[in-house]
Amino acid sequence: KAELRTRKPGWNIRASEMSKNTLNPIRAIVDGMKLTPNPDKAMIALSIGDPTVFGNLPTDETILQAMKDAIDSHRYNGYAPSVGYLQSREAVANFYSCPEAPLEGKDVILTSGCSQAIELCISVLCNPGDNILVPCPGFSLYKTLAVSLGIQVKLYNLQPEKSWEIDLEHMESLINEKTACLIVNNPSNPCGSVYSKEHLQDILAVASKHCIPILADEIYGDMVFPGYSCHYMAPLSRDVPILSCGGLAKRWLVPGWRMGWILIHDRNQTFGSEIREGLVKLSQRILGPCTIVQGALESILNSTPKEFLDSTISFLKSNSELCFSALSSIPGLTPVRPSGAMYLMVGIEMEHFPEFRNDVEFTERLVTEQSVFCLPATAFEYPNFFRIVVTVPEDMMVEACSRIREFCKTHYRPDTQDTSDPDQ
Amino acid sequence: KAELRTRKPGWNIRASEMSKNTLNPIRAIVDGMKLTPNPDKAMIALSIGDPTVFGNLPTDETILQAMKDAIDSHRYNGYAPSVGYLQSREAVANFYSCPEAPLEGKDVILTSGCSQAIELCISVLCNPGDNILVPCPGFSLYKTLAVSLGIQVKLYNLQPEKSWEIDLEHMESLINEKTACLIVNNPSNPCGSVYSKEHLQDILAVASKHCIPILADEIYGDMVFPGYSCHYMAPLSRDVPILSCGGLAKRWLVPGWRMGWILIHDRNQTFGSEIREGLVKLSQRILGPCTIVQGALESILNSTPKEFLDSTISFLKSNSELCFSALSSIPGLTPVRPSGAMYLMVGIEMEHFPEFRNDVEFTERLVTEQSVFCLPATAFEYPNFFRIVVTVPEDMMVEACSRIREFCKTHYRPDTQDTSDPDQ
Ligand SMILES: Cc1ncc(COP(=O)(O)O)c(C=O)c1O
Ligand SMILES: Cc1ncc(COP(=O)(O)O)c(C=O)c1O
Repeated sequence: KAELRTRKPGWNIRASEMSKNTLNPIRAIVDGMKLTPNPDKAMIALSIGDPTVFGNLPTDETILQAMKDAIDSHRYNGYAPSVGYLQSREAVANFYSCPEAPLEGKDVILTSGCSQAIELCISVLCNPGDNILVPCPGFSLYKTLAVSLGIQVKLYNLQPEKSWEIDLEHMESLINEKTACLIVNNPSNPCGSVYSKEHLQDILAVASKHCIPILADEIYGDMVFPGYSCHYMAPLSRDVPILSCGGLAKRWLVPGWRMGWILIHDRNQTFGSEIREGLVKLSQRILGPCTIVQGALESILNSTPKEFLDSTISFLKSNSELCFSALSSIPGLTPVRPSGAMYLMVGIEMEHFPEFRNDVEFTERLVTEQSVFCLPATAFEYPNFFRIVVTVPEDMMVEACSRIREFCKTHYRPDTQDTSDPDQ
Repeated sequence: KAELRTRKPGWNIRASEMSKNTLNPIRAIVDGMKLTPNPDKAMIALSIGDPTVFGNLPTDETILQAMKDAIDSHRYNGYAPSVGYLQSREAVANFYSCPEAPLEGKDVILTSGCSQAIELCISVLCNPGDNILVPCPGFSLYKTLAVSLGIQVKLYNLQPEKSWEIDLEHMESLINEKTACLIVNNPSNPCGSVYSKEHLQDILAVASKHCIPILADEIYGDMVFPGYSCHYMAPLSRDVPILSCGGLAKRWLVPGWRMGWILIHDRNQTFGSEIREGLVKLSQRILGPCTIVQGALESILNSTPKEFLDSTISFLKSNSELCFSALSSIPGLTPVRPSGAMYLMVGIEMEHFPEFRNDVEFTERLVTEQSVFCLPATAFEYPNFFRIVVTVPEDMMVEACSRIREFCKTHYRPDTQDTSDPDQ
């Protein structure tokens, strides 16, 4: 009764600190923008990281049939183990196993999308007060999750002039005794970059030197343009333990199905049973992804025709080449040539656009005048760039590029000093 | 560089505190049991809370067809909003809306199973150091989630002799200034109890008096035997804000599909925009349930024939009556008659079974001798009881009950004093 008296009278329900600290920078920035398109021009959104929205990149019929077969089998309506059916885990293991980084079913944990894979990996490796190394520019979810868990984020620089390779010296300088994990995203959102084997080995050397496990976000694995090759990180290291996160979202073009996975690549028992068991425990919170998709997984991985991936890639490559070369010739813009994934980053030479204070204002006005929306890269902590998603139909891409050209022509000032101070 | 030197050399990867604190009492207890069945008798598991495992309770064809239609529509492969498609949310709102507790699409958040619904509700209402009131015996996930988030669990007593009604005085005595939420599970796992309107009103009165929001776990909503009626909590209160958690798992018999929801029943803006926005933010961590199930949801809710639910219920009722009356006549056991859900709790008069120290030893030996496995209720923090799942086929239920009878006959001692001390 003494206890009771100390309770404040009246309703006083507050949202938790954790929910308040779950910040989505893309939403925060986009919601703060005045996005009123030009009524005379149809809106073209180059901002949406969902390859399915325009209908030009449908998933394969084999994949849909696998789902219907799973439903008709009546075998996948009950609870699966929280880490997934063993058979489905084995299918993923077989798909990704290679002699340098062998995998068995027990090394795979199925999750609700790659997002949950990342959440579980960060949650198992880090305590509040630890820090993680995160690429800049990079996918915003890493920071969103870390901050909500009380984990500090240290951003390491990517170098646009070196096709977005990591500034390894900078990255290394961030490491301290509280560094619990290094996140590497290859191929990259938002950069569309694909790292060479040598660069990945250099990254692994730093991780090895300082004994830091790697969370490899490889959701765009194998989505690499002809002429480049995609290397997963695990086969390249003998001593760095790696949690590789992936899923069906991008390569198989079904992001809504929420099927992701963690591949546990232990080395010399460095993760040991502790990390494995930790992941299993965390998976029990929400009990894994939809069993119908799990039931279809083996067939999706093994029966989707090779031509499906090839044709997706050839579309992405041709669209991104088109976009890259169109924007390359626009004074004031510096697109960075991508070699994979579905994105392209474009630098804005702000000194030539004195009307705009930053990438947010630039992209905002691009909507107002030209009805083209590109995501300002401030959303990736990388000001003065914007990101283009290259999954839109080709004709939209052509039209968008010509509108961007018109926009830049209108606002470009060859020499800012002169225009900004006409009295001199 | 100074920083670098402080890092300990060598690999030293530890699982996080949070993962270590994600404890699953059922696993902990079951994994510690020696479960070696009698080789002469086929194993009968009365322990599995998955109604689909024996094949006698298939889901309805309408439900499977709705899934196949969603697949064939090609409309549900992309990302949905993280809280779910508006159309699917509206379908849930319409299904549960009533004049006393109206719901719109905006009041519904779709989640990855009822488990994630509970996780989001606890996460948004509580900070570390807060406490929540949880039924005892009760579903173990509440404690698993709370403890992992640093939230204290206070167990309030249910009263077997009053059909598991809450001991309201005890519950009220636990409330203090740090009490952030009251969890009510009705109908109940593991009790199979269904509360009367009056009892629910009494619970609401306590919540109202102390201004504590309610998390109503109503996943077994409407799964109530003929003669009883199922009352949801929200329509019974005008001032207590309620988050009601539910999903497709039980009533529609597809637990693997991982479709759950939160119904936000605000009252006088007590939750306000803060709790709504907090839930939206938290949903962005893993981006919602599988879109195919979301696409099928409207049709599942509106087109599943009434006979499907009715026949499930009539099976559950007849099986639980059968089990209850069989066990009622066994000396030493005290089953509590259920009125809904899929469970039945059985008290063990331990003084008559002096060979066993507790429910864990009792149920362990029941496996060794009779190959019948019931979950010891220590897993629900309720020693000297065990839980029976009544979804098994009738013949197995009959056989299991007769084996339990044989087991009890073998081990029952009418008067413990005499047998335990033969020298007196
Ligand atoms: C780099 C990266 N990682 C992870 C994800 C999340 O994938 P999923 O939709 O499977 O959760 C995305 C989605 O855009 C991404 O770009
Ligand atoms: C009382 C209760 N709440 C919630 C759940 C979890 O439901 P779901 O499988 O939809 O996550 C269960 C599952 O057994 C349950 O018994």
